[in-house]
Amino acid sequence: MDLFFNNGILESSEEISFSIEETKHLMKVLRKDKGDHVKVTNGEGLEWIGKISSVISKHAKAKKIKTKKMSRSNDNIHIAISPTKSNSRMEWFVEKVTELGVNQITPIICFHSERRSLNLDRYQKIIISAIKQSKQFFIPRLNPVISFNDFIESHASNIDLYIAHCHDMKRRQIHEINNFKEDVIVMVGPEGDFSVKEIEFAVKKNAIPISLGANILRTETAGILATNNIIFQKHILKY
Amino acid sequence: MDLFFNNGILESSEEISFSIEETKHLMKVLRKDKGDHVKVTNGEGLEWIGKISSVISKHAKAKKIKTKKMSRSNDNIHIAISPTKSNSRMEWFVEKVTELGVNQITPIICFHSERRSLNLDRYQKIIISAIKQSKQFFIPRLNPVISFNDFIESHASNIDLYIAHCHDMKRRQIHEINNFKEDVIVMVGPEGDFSVKEIEFAVKKNAIPISLGANILRTETAGILATNNIIFQKHILKY
Repeated sequence: MDLFFNNGILESSEEISFSIEETKHLMKVLRKDKGDHVKVTNGEGLEWIGKISSVISKHAKAKKIKTKKMSRSNDNIHIAISPTKSNSRMEWFVEKVTELGVNQITPIICFHSERRSLNLDRYQKIIISAIKQSKQFFIPRLNPVISFNDFIESHASNIDLYIAHCHDMKRRQIHEINNFKEDVIVMVGPEGDFSVKEIEFAVKKNAIPISLGANILRTETAGILATNNIIFQKHILKY
Repeated sequence: MDLFFNNGILESSEEISFSIEETKHLMKVLRKDKGDHVKVTNGEGLEWIGKISSVISKHAKAKKIKTKKMSRSNDNIHIAISPTKSNSRMEWFVEKVTELGVNQITPIICFHSERRSLNLDRYQKIIISAIKQSKQFFIPRLNPVISFNDFIESHASNIDLYIAHCHDMKRRQIHEINNFKEDVIVMVGPEGDFSVKEIEFAVKKNAIPISLGANILRTETAGILATNNIIFQKHILKY
């Protein structure tokens, strides 16, 4: 069953109304009709299942049948990433890490970041579309844009703060790390990488420098690989 | 140093010539000049370092300084994947798995594949661009398009042949597999997944059904995750 998203619904909501766009999707694409079931989440772990009760002025309505509250995992994988020069690469990144199961995304403006303004509303739409597509009941948090230094200052107390870079400096290999904590933050730099000064500052504030492997990855690929490897490593550790 | 690609060069090549496009990139973008060094690979493990000797009629030439032959890893990660409905998603897949280090890509036409014709020349260009970008000396092999059944028939003797799908049937979890062989093939289906008939046929031919996790992934994301997880698992097994 397709999953719809509505951040306003609660477990107690007895009836919900779909937007004109959603109604069109429900009736024309999915060929649903009155009496058919629909599944909706608020991105906060709620699964709300209802039955289409009416379609008035292009808005479908559904009445509650049952709800279920999913429990949130304690894992919190947070990718802080410089915007890429090309906006479409950043949009791909947002879609892919959402599908994979990231928990937080923060755009960070670094010394070598070439683009500094982002359309967060557009990213939010991509995130919603990706959780519907991948059938997830928790929506990742998209944080406001912040400068590299401010980000470091506000997360310096985090135990698992990693900075991925390609400089020829001492780094741990990501696949060697087998003790990720519940809260993991990985910082990924722009096309020109973090500056040496930025890395030194991060290390002074307890960040751990890591390498993501021998290949030089594009920014968005680095963010996807980091997300996936941490999820994978956490899965393995549970076995 | 930027890496150039020329599939015609050998260890013995004393001089090479760059295309007009490459010459423009060398001289205008990288601001190289006569006497500067250039690094070229043939995608077969050769690192050829030369010195720009002349620029005649918009073609730069370089004379050999030294060469190095990289040894190929025994790993052979092969993703057989249905084309996606949207071509840009497939192009994105090709770029990302090349960056990550896939060894072979085969487009397979499945029962639910909506697109059946592909511009392999375009994919080949993306692959070349991605190995240059990620500084790899081996180019992944892009195989011709083949039908699902023919693919299965020709790889049924492979020990490590996996079929990733989302049906509610018995599957191993990819993160539980800790004994990937050197030759691993993962098959990834189209937007509508493999058909049950296709899965049954594959299993009869010794394919192992796997799940890539709880989230429903888009085709291209599934291919990227499979590639990355196998590389990561192989890395971990070496420690």
